[in-house]
Amino acid sequence: MTSTPVRRSIATVCLSGTLEDKLAAAAGAGFDGIEVFEPDLLASPWSPAEVALRCADLGLSIDLYQPFRDLDSTDPDRFARNLRRAERKFDVMAALGTSTILVCSSVAPDAVADPDHLAEQLAAAADRAAARGLQLAYEALAWGRHVSTWDRSWDAVRRADHPALGLCLDSFHVLSRQSDPAGFAAVPAEKLFFLQLADAPQLQMDVLQWSRHHRLFPGQGAFDLPGFLAAVLDAGYSGPLSLEVFNDVFRQADPGRTAVDAMRSLLWLEEQLAGRRPDLGLAAPPPAPRLTGYSFAELAVDGVSGPQVGALLAGLGFSHTGQHRSKPVQLWEQGEARVLVNASVVRPAAAGTAEVTALGLESEDPTRSAHRATALLAPVLPRTRGSAEAELSAVAAPDGTQVFFTRTGPEGWPADFLPTGTATGPGAGAGITGVDHVGLTQPFDSFDEAGLFYREVLGLRTGAVTEIPAPYGLVRNRAVTNPERTVRLALSVSLLRRGGWSPGVPAPQYVAFATADVVATARALRAAGAPLLPIPANYHDDLDARFDLDPRLLADMREHGLLYDEDEQGAYLHLCTPVLGDRVYVEVVQRIGDYDAYGAVDAPVRMAAHRRARLAAAAAADAG
Amino acid sequence: MTSTPVRRSIATVCLSGTLEDKLAAAAGAGFDGIEVFEPDLLASPWSPAEVALRCADLGLSIDLYQPFRDLDSTDPDRFARNLRRAERKFDVMAALGTSTILVCSSVAPDAVADPDHLAEQLAAAADRAAARGLQLAYEALAWGRHVSTWDRSWDAVRRADHPALGLCLDSFHVLSRQSDPAGFAAVPAEKLFFLQLADAPQLQMDVLQWSRHHRLFPGQGAFDLPGFLAAVLDAGYSGPLSLEVFNDVFRQADPGRTAVDAMRSLLWLEEQLAGRRPDLGLAAPPPAPRLTGYSFAELAVDGVSGPQVGALLAGLGFSHTGQHRSKPVQLWEQGEARVLVNASVVRPAAAGTAEVTALGLESEDPTRSAHRATALLAPVLPRTRGSAEAELSAVAAPDGTQVFFTRTGPEGWPADFLPTGTATGPGAGAGITGVDHVGLTQPFDSFDEAGLFYREVLGLRTGAVTEIPAPYGLVRNRAVTNPERTVRLALSVSLLRRGGWSPGVPAPQYVAFATADVVATARALRAAGAPLLPIPANYHDDLDARFDLDPRLLADMREHGLLYDEDEQGAYLHLCTPVLGDRVYVEVVQRIGDYDAYGAVDAPVRMAAHRRARLAAAAAADAG
Repeated sequence: MTSTPVRRSIATVCLSGTLEDKLAAAAGAGFDGIEVFEPDLLASPWSPAEVALRCADLGLSIDLYQPFRDLDSTDPDRFARNLRRAERKFDVMAALGTSTILVCSSVAPDAVADPDHLAEQLAAAADRAAARGLQLAYEALAWGRHVSTWDRSWDAVRRADHPALGLCLDSFHVLSRQSDPAGFAAVPAEKLFFLQLADAPQLQMDVLQWSRHHRLFPGQGAFDLPGFLAAVLDAGYSGPLSLEVFNDVFRQADPGRTAVDAMRSLLWLEEQLAGRRPDLGLAAPPPAPRLTGYSFAELAVDGVSGPQVGALLAGLGFSHTGQHRSKPVQLWEQGEARVLVNASVVRPAAAGTAEVTALGLESEDPTRSAHRATALLAPVLPRTRGSAEAELSAVAAPDGTQVFFTRTGPEGWPADFLPTGTATGPGAGAGITGVDHVGLTQPFDSFDEAGLFYREVLGLRTGAVTEIPAPYGLVRNRAVTNPERTVRLALSVSLLRRGGWSPGVPAPQYVAFATADVVATARALRAAGAPLLPIPANYHDDLDARFDLDPRLLADMREHGLLYDEDEQGAYLHLCTPVLGDRVYVEVVQRIGDYDAYGAVDAPVRMAAHRRARLAAAAAADAG
Repeated sequence: MTSTPVRRSIATVCLSGTLEDKLAAAAGAGFDGIEVFEPDLLASPWSPAEVALRCADLGLSIDLYQPFRDLDSTDPDRFARNLRRAERKFDVMAALGTSTILVCSSVAPDAVADPDHLAEQLAAAADRAAARGLQLAYEALAWGRHVSTWDRSWDAVRRADHPALGLCLDSFHVLSRQSDPAGFAAVPAEKLFFLQLADAPQLQMDVLQWSRHHRLFPGQGAFDLPGFLAAVLDAGYSGPLSLEVFNDVFRQADPGRTAVDAMRSLLWLEEQLAGRRPDLGLAAPPPAPRLTGYSFAELAVDGVSGPQVGALLAGLGFSHTGQHRSKPVQLWEQGEARVLVNASVVRPAAAGTAEVTALGLESEDPTRSAHRATALLAPVLPRTRGSAEAELSAVAAPDGTQVFFTRTGPEGWPADFLPTGTATGPGAGAGITGVDHVGLTQPFDSFDEAGLFYREVLGLRTGAVTEIPAPYGLVRNRAVTNPERTVRLALSVSLLRRGGWSPGVPAPQYVAFATADVVATARALRAAGAPLLPIPANYHDDLDARFDLDPRLLADMREHGLLYDEDEQGAYLHLCTPVLGDRVYVEVVQRIGDYDAYGAVDAPVRMAAHRRARLAAAAAADAG
């Protein structure tokens, strides 16, 4: 077999904006074609012929016109009117230069229930289409009145037995009804007219609302898209792989960005099947090298926040061990924890704020990590290189954080730093052994994009999306880890973008350092004068009510303001500093047993404490 | 019977913020008491005794401590630990000075299924409570493992037969399971320990998610709260009326504002039953006077937008008939449509923008309208009055729009205007007969508040909440009308607060004028040079495909850019002007038959056209 590269397509409904915006976004992300979603055309000043020209200019084919609703009818007059309506849409298709229209199963009260009657009406419409050189792809909506599963749609198409009538398979409609894609094998390949791909989280709700609001791109939800696509391809489908995602967030987000996210999801999906179907020319980016741990976390500072961060790190037992050869960047170390304090980054943020701007991740092959990232459309960052500076590959994560792929060693990035002469020998420091995780608030519009980015571009694992009721609104959390748990990220986002009442820390970030004994570390920090966040006694009283804790440990928790969580795997002790500037704080965490989470249950207590500390600091500043 | 005024209470979980914020908000809105939601206490630096003092200072009683979860257990050790946990919470209650704790039915795998075993454990816990002078209010969570309906909770309480054990009835848990409140009559009054009130929209989804995200205050949803409350009161309940609402929007909105919305919902609910139960001292605000129509719509302008608005009104056939005696306010008239163009309002909006800032509504009793509004906590606006100026009562709607209650006549508000001498006799104008409706985008956080405001404060009717997929994200719509349909408002809100990508008109507003013949009006407008919004041919091609339209009418629609909708009741033709400044435009509408909607289905086409017009105007300004 010769390789016939798959074509990648996207329905315009996936993207926000007008048709003009959508075409530009789809072309910009490298799609080969589009599905024209009718409402987008109706709102466009371009005639169908002009749309066709614009698409040709952009290198986009028009693979489908959609949707045509409620074709069949038990009322002969209405069916005649529906055929007239179809003819008008065939005019539009002719001008667009597209041959296939999506006909979805009727939801109307007059929908035809009798399978032969339905097949007869579909065939009548297919006759009209065939006369124009067009064809109908019939799709079972999961909430169709009589046809709501793909096998019912196939039954109608089989009975109609018309060359201009075939199936459109939509992964949402099939998988939301828990139908088995294995059945596709019974469908002749020439009857598979079109394929629409969408993922979704597993939700217990009305299927129409689930479909219209919560679809996601492949790899972002809970459906088995690789299994679905494998079944479709094995059945002989040879048309485009086309995305059709209705999602409340994507509908209002920058379409250029959404289109890239969409394309990345398709490249990932292809990669899952590339080895199995080498004949199809599916995407096969370089495999993700193992990421083995944090080489550093970078905080960007200015003249105000720089000394504050330095004082905090010193208080936490870090030593200022290195100074960058060519830039105002300090290296601070304790155990395997390394923090870069970078005063060279120009930032739009408010003066006096510190921000997590970069993470160094140890890669077994940094060059391949960067190549994979490029293949999966991650923005690769330009890097000016001084004479004695190691070359570093970096990509921008969806929240703008720079992710550097490093190999730490004498020839690696540490060679960029001149030693200050300060030692970090045994006995120094406060017991911090490394970076446990970094907590990053994601931009509202890119939370799902971020999950896909870390999983596909970096080859990490994503945990379940969970929610906590925080004092200023619900917060969603999702963990990203490597298999060994030496790389952990805690992503979060507000369930609703904030409005005028915003008393919390906006878009907080934190670096959580690991210790083997948080009580000992807390004592050392307090001895060194590090500012720890006070935690209310009510919280510890509740711990005492809920858990059977060693009284000495509980007394230590009260004394040092430790937060605590436990589950079947183990337990978790952590402490927080106040917020530096507007958004960054530090945690120190101790994991006991196989506890694998992040103490998110304590976030409301921590948020309220942070607000109090900020109000107190502001009051002190006013008084001073 | 002597009147024992009901007490009004609110659970702290209804309000955003920390406990400190919540107590202040509840007291500010006039609540008598609160339910302390435990997580709010745990995050507070105040000890329970300090919370009690603070509440006493604010005039708030603490009516309930909640929730106590998963009390019963098939594992005796675990049950013993649960009793220990309860004792610790009894300590907290003693310090808070509250006597009742909410025990909700267990959701845990070890929940007790056997009714007698469950009753035995509840009685054991009630023994412990009674020894401290406390009591347990047992509530069936709609998703409880074995007890998920109120009658199962009553069965457990009845079997336990313990004086310190009674029921908590929660309207959400009862009505979401479609249980009949009539059954409450079988419960002795002394067993009705507590009552929690929440409304909700009718949603087809997992009941836990429905409860935790989508509850609303009474009158804002689809449940029959008056019927529920009547059944509870008839059964002899004499405790506080307490609100417990979990809502994603309220969780992140200004708690002071939410608390007022909550209190208004309770006053409305009481009003429904005040006549039936005069013994309870329920709220009975003055009945809402009939509102009979629009006296005027006011546009605030500045030096840039003022002349633009004047030119537009002149182009639309309005005459400048009056000038305010003491302020830079013009009166423009055509038929029964009156527009005030007010250059005296100080506005924070961008220069050059026009805004709908006030509506005049004809009331059969303006003074009583204002008194009702005051009784229902609407902000009454101060009004400076010149020597020859009519006194006008006005309140602020949730979006800040000033609503004036007027009686138009020789002694009324028109007397404030000196005639300009310009006539508006028959034959003048373009056929506009009055104001059909006003479209107002609501602030994201107050869409549900607005529905309650217009319904309860003004005595109008609210329609169903509907959604349309617009080019820049989903939009929710809700109509507000008087019974005669001479007062109509079209409220809208984005489903998600907008982020960085915001190509649409932010928070658009419009005034829709009525005409009996929109084609004739369109001709007159074009003859007068009024700018009409161009509508794409694709839109009219689709109308032709979908409807059986008179070809002459279709040709007129194409020529003048008319939009069209039809339903079983009738049809609707409307046209739009471009946006003036940043947010206001004008529609002219013709209703045919009994069409009762607002053409929302056309909004995507209109939004895309508005964006094009704005881009074209900006390009022309750049070029010029």
